[in-house]
This record gives sequence, structure tokens and C-alpha cells, in this order.
Amino acid sequence: MTAKLSLMAARDLANRVLIAAGVSEANAASVARALVSAEADGLASHGLSRLPAYADQAKAGKVVGNAAASVTETAPGAVRVDARDGFAFPAIEAGLACAATLVKKSGTVAVAVGNSHHFGVAGYHIEPLAEQGLVALAFGNSPAAIAPWGGSRPIFGTNPIAFACPCPGREPLVIDLSLSKVARGKIMVAAQKGEAIPEGWALDKDGKPTTDAKAALGGAMVAMGDAKGTALVLMVELLAAALTGSNFGYEASSFFDAKGPPPRVGQFFLVIDPARFAGDAFAARVGTLTSVMLEQDGARLPGDRRLEARRKAQAGGITISDDLHAELVRRARS
Amino acid sequence: MTAKLSLMAARDLANRVLIAAGVSEANAASVARALVSAEADGLASHGLSRLPAYADQAKAGKVVGNAAASVTETAPGAVRVDARDGFAFPAIEAGLACAATLVKKSGTVAVAVGNSHHFGVAGYHIEPLAEQGLVALAFGNSPAAIAPWGGSRPIFGTNPIAFACPCPGREPLVIDLSLSKVARGKIMVAAQKGEAIPEGWALDKDGKPTTDAKAALGGAMVAMGDAKGTALVLMVELLAAALTGSNFGYEASSFFDAKGPPPRVGQFFLVIDPARFAGDAFAARVGTLTSVMLEQDGARLPGDRRLEARRKAQAGGITISDDLHAELVRRARS
Repeated sequence: MTAKLSLMAARDLANRVLIAAGVSEANAASVARALVSAEADGLASHGLSRLPAYADQAKAGKVVGNAAASVTETAPGAVRVDARDGFAFPAIEAGLACAATLVKKSGTVAVAVGNSHHFGVAGYHIEPLAEQGLVALAFGNSPAAIAPWGGSRPIFGTNPIAFACPCPGREPLVIDLSLSKVARGKIMVAAQKGEAIPEGWALDKDGKPTTDAKAALGGAMVAMGDAKGTALVLMVELLAAALTGSNFGYEASSFFDAKGPPPRVGQFFLVIDPARFAGDAFAARVGTLTSVMLEQDGARLPGDRRLEARRKAQAGGITISDDLHAELVRRARS
Repeated sequence: MTAKLSLMAARDLANRVLIAAGVSEANAASVARALVSAEADGLASHGLSRLPAYADQAKAGKVVGNAAASVTETAPGAVRVDARDGFAFPAIEAGLACAATLVKKSGTVAVAVGNSHHFGVAGYHIEPLAEQGLVALAFGNSPAAIAPWGGSRPIFGTNPIAFACPCPGREPLVIDLSLSKVARGKIMVAAQKGEAIPEGWALDKDGKPTTDAKAALGGAMVAMGDAKGTALVLMVELLAAALTGSNFGYEASSFFDAKGPPPRVGQFFLVIDPARFAGDAFAARVGTLTSVMLEQDGARLPGDRRLEARRKAQAGGITISDDLHAELVRRARS
């Protein structure tokens, strides 16, 4: 059984769950917006299903619900954000708002967000910058899931990369990918069902390729693109954690439970004003390239599925399981 | 049979080949340095074997041998370089020298290099920035080799990404990868030998996976990481070509022959001063992460093989085929 909610009703419900857990109104609104946006975009694993764990972490102080992130402009093209163990969403929003102003003068701005938490859908944060005509990149690290190439013990996160830019006549072009070959959730489902997983997805605890889902959960995820992708995972770990003064994947606590200290992961953003590099020609050239892509049978633009889901959700709302709905209603009332 | 050359002798020979083809002394020195560096690092496909084609292109005007790149600071964090159809190496050198100065004030600088040519080993350009304590990223596009995901006709290049940062007690950490699953050269070798290639490397002209090396050469390369990697290929095409006012992969002429107009591809760089983001802690944290990586049996740091080759070449010189050596000597004298 499922429950259907309008986007406004879903945001309101999420808001109330967070406020009941002691989160400040401003932070709750920011988190609720992000989770409902993921749900609307068809990315349910980063949607309302996260809310119970977020609320439990707020109650336990693993995430500081009323944190006010500090935003410091350390140079014309450099912004430091200390999320102060609060939710990532309001901290990133504050940092990127500052960057969107600075970039008009400096041409390029980087934003380093430290002492942060799960940032959900990486592309979500930068899509509004592309709506303003800017180009942006996002990098985030997460608790350990991927081993160094040749090794066996996970020390890096699945470390998403996202890119957004304006695209004439349509929504911004948003590229968004985590660097593991498949989502860990797929392996968890196979383990529950007692099914095998395809070779190449994961390693067992000795670093050997495995098709045993349970052995995979005790081992490490494989990066997309194998050795090359693992090098990108390291790159993101250095940008998102080392450059932001945050924990590496192997130092970070889980995003899924209320145990232990705050995860203190980091996020790194680059914001670029294309007018300083390609003048007015940039968006037109994006339009040319995407048109040429779409001339080919079977080719799609990244994010097309996400935008289709979004249009449906805007018209007809979102659907979540009855169990999750009942739990959220119960938490909102408590 | 092979010929052995000291690095100095190799640079001198390369220099003379380029000058004999009408390249200015300053540009020849920059190109020779880059090709010999690739050769020393064990990356022979980007080394002296490129020189005959470079020289032919200079003679034909497909690359302008005496071009003086224009470098314009369009904002405190934005540098535009017009390579003016000359070699990429001197144009990038000029742009990154400007960025290395600007970044000390602005914290972040992007450099867009347009109307450019083959930039060889992507990491080569940014390693000197890391030696100065900076963090840098490089993106370049190249002639069409990879199709949009779901399509069949190649329109994107193999589009390398590189990253460099300081690493305490050793050479900078340099990550450098092209985004195709394997180098096209491997498929050319298999086609010459009449051997099959593994499934997953390439598509035939109808966009179907193929193990026939000849069919693969008439089709498209597959990106590392399949769908996810192809999204990164598009991202690099937008950064390196659309943001620099350059040709997309499907518009660019070959780097390997003297036919047609200049390739006019582009390169995009990001230069970051870690002091503005993580204070002095950045390099120490890189050291921590790399130490933790190396605690694992079988794990290596990216670039280790390259540095081993470099140390050998610095001590004992480089080795090229007798045929190539004879051709370079002939060209240097002409």
C-alpha cells in the first residue's frame, strides 16, 4: 500500500518531523525542500526515506539541528563554510549564495564546506546556479565503501561528482553520478533475497572479486571504471575532505544511524561565470552539442529521466509507502 | 633495434626537428620539453613518436609554429588564452603562469585555452603548480572517438581529466586519465594482428558491442565506466570546448596528420590555493590519506609507475626505435 502526497504536503510533513526532532525552522525548511526534491525527481533513496534517520540523529546530537553555518569569504574567489556539525543543505545553500554573488566579479569561486553531513543529491545544490546562467561542479565524500585500487579495505566514500550548466530552451543540463559501479542498496537487496550479484560490482574482505552479496557487504564496492574510476574517487576525497578540513571516508560515521560522533564529511564546489571565458556564446554552444547528441537514435541527455519524474510529481504529487507515511505522521505528532 | 638518448640530447633533437619545420625557438623548446617529459615518464604514445606529425602540421600550417598565444585576465579569477592555432604547450604554459600569480590573491582561478592543439599528457601541465603548493585540475577535449550513451556515432573525444596536488615527502600526487575504457592504440594493434578485442571496449558502426577490432575502428570507443563515464565525457567536452570557444570532438581535425584545418580543440584548468580553504593543513592531510592507502598490500598511488620510469630516464636516458631516431635525425638536418 502506498500514500500519495502533493509536493507541498510532503514538504510540510517533512518539516514537522524535523521540527519535532528539535531542528530549527530555517534548517528544517532547507532539509525538507531537498528531500522532497529528490523524491520528486525519482531519487527515492535520497528522499523521504532518509527522514527517520535524520530525525534520530538530530535528537541524538549527531547532527546539530539548530546549527547556523558560518560563511567566510577568504579571498575574492574563495569561500569557506563551517557547517558546524549541522545539516549539509542549509550550509551549502548559504555558501553557494555567497559564491553566486562573488563570481560576478571574480569569474570563478570555489566553496569548501567542512564539518558537514550527508548532502543528498549532488546535482540538487548546483542546478539553481545553472538557472542563473552559471556553470558549477560539486564534489562530496561519504563514509568508507571503496578500497584503494589493488587493496581490499574500504577507505573512500562513493564520492559523487555533479556538473550543471544552462542549456537553451530547456532546464539546465545536470550530470550527477556517484563513483561506485552500482549503488550499495542493490547489493543489500540481493543479500536479503539470497541472490548472487554480477562479477565486477564488489570485492570480498580479502579484496577478491565476489558474486556473493553477503561477502560483498563485508568487503568493498568497486568504483565505476575500475582503476581509472578509483583514481577519481581519490581525487574527490582530496577535494571534498582534505581541502575542506573534513573527515576522510574511513574516519566518517554512518549517515544511516544515530550512533557515534557527527560524520564531519565535506563538500567542495566550483562556480564559474561562463561570460568571463566564452562571452555570450557558451549557452548556444551547449545547445548545439545537445542537439547533435539527440540526432542519434537511442541517445538521451543526462537527467532526462529525472526531469520526467519531476514533471509528473509537480502535476500529481509523490508516492511513498504506507509504512513510511505512517512513521512520518507519527513522528510529526510526537 | 633501438637508440638510447640522454634527456638533454632528446630535447635538443626534438628542438631541431621543430625548428627545421619552421617552429619558433621559444615554441619549439616548450613542445620538445613536453614530448621528452612524456617519453621519460614511460608514456611513449605522447612522446617523440608525435614529432613527425607535429612537424608536418607545422609545415602545412595546420599548427602555426610561430604563434604567440594571447593571455587575457578577464577577472581576478578568470584567464582566457587564445592559442591562435599554435601548439598547446606554450599557450598553456603562459596561461598557467598567469594563473599561478593571480591565485595567490583570488584563491581560485580558471584558465580557458581556446583555438588549441593536442595537449599531450594532461597531468604534465599541472604538476609544476602542485610543486608550488597549489591544487589544480585539467580537462581537455580531442577529436571524436566516443558516442553519446545509447547512440552509435562518435562525437566526443577521449577527453582526459587530470588532478595534481602537493604530497609531503614525495613528488606531487598526479592523477591523469583519459575517459575511454582503453586507448584506441590497443584496438589498432589488435586490428593489425587480426586479433579479437574483449567485449566492452568498443561499438561497431551500428552502436552494437563488438569484439571485431576492425569493426571497432569504424565504430566508437566505449567510455570507462560505461553510462556514468560517458556523462563525464560530456562534462569535459562542455568545460574544455564550450567554455573555451573551441571545436567539439566531432568538429575537430586529427592530431595525427597534416590534413584539413587546425583542430582548434580546447583545454580548461582550475587552479586552487589550498591555503584559502584548509589553511596549512591540506598537505598534511594528503600525506595522511596516502599513508593509509599504502598500508594495504597491493595498493599503489596513482602515478607511481610514471615516477619510476622518470627516475630511470633521468639516470639512464630514454630509448626510442632506430627507425624513429633515424627519421628525427633526418628531419633535424633538413
